[in-house]
Amino acid sequence: MPKGEIEPPDAIAAGAMEPLRRVRVTIAYDGTNFHGWQVQPGVITIQSVLQDALGIIEGAPVIVAGSGRTDAGVHALGQVAAFSLRNPIPVENLQRALNRLLPGSIRILAATETHREFHPRFDAVSKTYEYRIFRGEICLAFESNFVYHHPYPLDVGRMLQLAPLLEGEHDFSAFAAADDRDIQGRSKIRRIFSSGFAVRGEYLIYSVRGSGFLKHMVRNIVGTLLEVGKGNVDEDLLGRQLKTGSRISPSQRAPAKGLYLLSVEY
Amino acid sequence: MPKGEIEPPDAIAAGAMEPLRRVRVTIAYDGTNFHGWQVQPGVITIQSVLQDALGIIEGAPVIVAGSGRTDAGVHALGQVAAFSLRNPIPVENLQRALNRLLPGSIRILAATETHREFHPRFDAVSKTYEYRIFRGEICLAFESNFVYHHPYPLDVGRMLQLAPLLEGEHDFSAFAAADDRDIQGRSKIRRIFSSGFAVRGEYLIYSVRGSGFLKHMVRNIVGTLLEVGKGNVDEDLLGRQLKTGSRISPSQRAPAKGLYLLSVEY
Repeated sequence: MPKGEIEPPDAIAAGAMEPLRRVRVTIAYDGTNFHGWQVQPGVITIQSVLQDALGIIEGAPVIVAGSGRTDAGVHALGQVAAFSLRNPIPVENLQRALNRLLPGSIRILAATETHREFHPRFDAVSKTYEYRIFRGEICLAFESNFVYHHPYPLDVGRMLQLAPLLEGEHDFSAFAAADDRDIQGRSKIRRIFSSGFAVRGEYLIYSVRGSGFLKHMVRNIVGTLLEVGKGNVDEDLLGRQLKTGSRISPSQRAPAKGLYLLSVEY
Repeated sequence: MPKGEIEPPDAIAAGAMEPLRRVRVTIAYDGTNFHGWQVQPGVITIQSVLQDALGIIEGAPVIVAGSGRTDAGVHALGQVAAFSLRNPIPVENLQRALNRLLPGSIRILAATETHREFHPRFDAVSKTYEYRIFRGEICLAFESNFVYHHPYPLDVGRMLQLAPLLEGEHDFSAFAAADDRDIQGRSKIRRIFSSGFAVRGEYLIYSVRGSGFLKHMVRNIVGTLLEVGKGNVDEDLLGRQLKTGSRISPSQRAPAKGLYLLSVEY
């Protein structure tokens, strides 16, 4: 190192300690009793619970980076996160130790060594979400936090037909969260690779894969497609909304409990 | 009515009101967030929430009788209850109104008119319970409140073999709740019609049908059968325990969250 250059903090620390390593984890969670992913003061979040468990293992604070936030009540079957730590525990043991320390509603499905620069958000190529609607008369008591119960008439054929209109590159301003919609500067352009419904018995499942998603975007898309099913939004209105980026069709954000982050692709 | 006879209270009331009718309901519930079935001061129970909802419909207090209590955290797929009310609402509408008033974790699966003397507890012929054990390494995040996670070695063949030993009429004192075990007077004799395990993938499911069950009895039976699987209890010890009624085998009560009241037979 040339004289006069400041040694990076990592190198100083590493003098007396184990080298810093980076671990990537795949996480499933039941979001019902958490205030979403992101750390917030005074409430329990997935990220805060993970950081607490890792802090016990590391004996020092650990920062966990996720592929993105999920709202309160939203679930994950394959959230991806990464963190750096010095504890040399093998990844298999780390996974087991985390699953012992974490509540049963958060499970580490996989843990692998990764390169020092890996970032679960910036390195992601796409994300896949699923939204579960239950159309039967009586929802299972055991699913009250895991599906959106909608026992009213819907033109499902029309919903299946129009859902793929979302595919492609669009300005999704009309589907952004209300508190985010009018903020200029940050691009609201995203690319949707696939968007469609599947009917499984009394369940209507919406799946969407995209380059990235704005806050509340999937729930707002589902809300709009439910209006398609009710006959309040037609192909023309949906097309114009995607073209102009203006919120011109009536819709409500679909409830958080029906939404699952299925996977993050790299 | 002959002079001098006292009119029964029902008849007096019916002079100005609708006649009293009796309704039988089948109920499913996720017991996670309830302090069991039975009304208790200061806590939320299935029975109290049902009575509150019926009180709104009737405009007067309604007492709900159940087929029996379930502990805090225990679930039901087919609990049976009955109540009397004067509101002439058709049963289909009553079911719908209740499902609207109740939290999603309690669902009325069926509602039918029944005779005035029907009592869900005293008229029951048998009850069927199921206990769900998950043996895989990582339990689903969505099932943390719905199965007992037991990822340790078990001699499942031995458990399948010995579970039917419970069948028949026995003094189940050894399987009664600790606070109930030594109370004399009330008979601890019950008849078990069927008792057995089924293996479904990584799940081990215990099913038991009996004339009636003591407090904690199914969970204590499962705890003992888990000791069979661990090699700590053999056929001789289990047989002697059923014969003598004395608690001579080591075991812990299995957790509430794995237990389901499947059905009540009349």
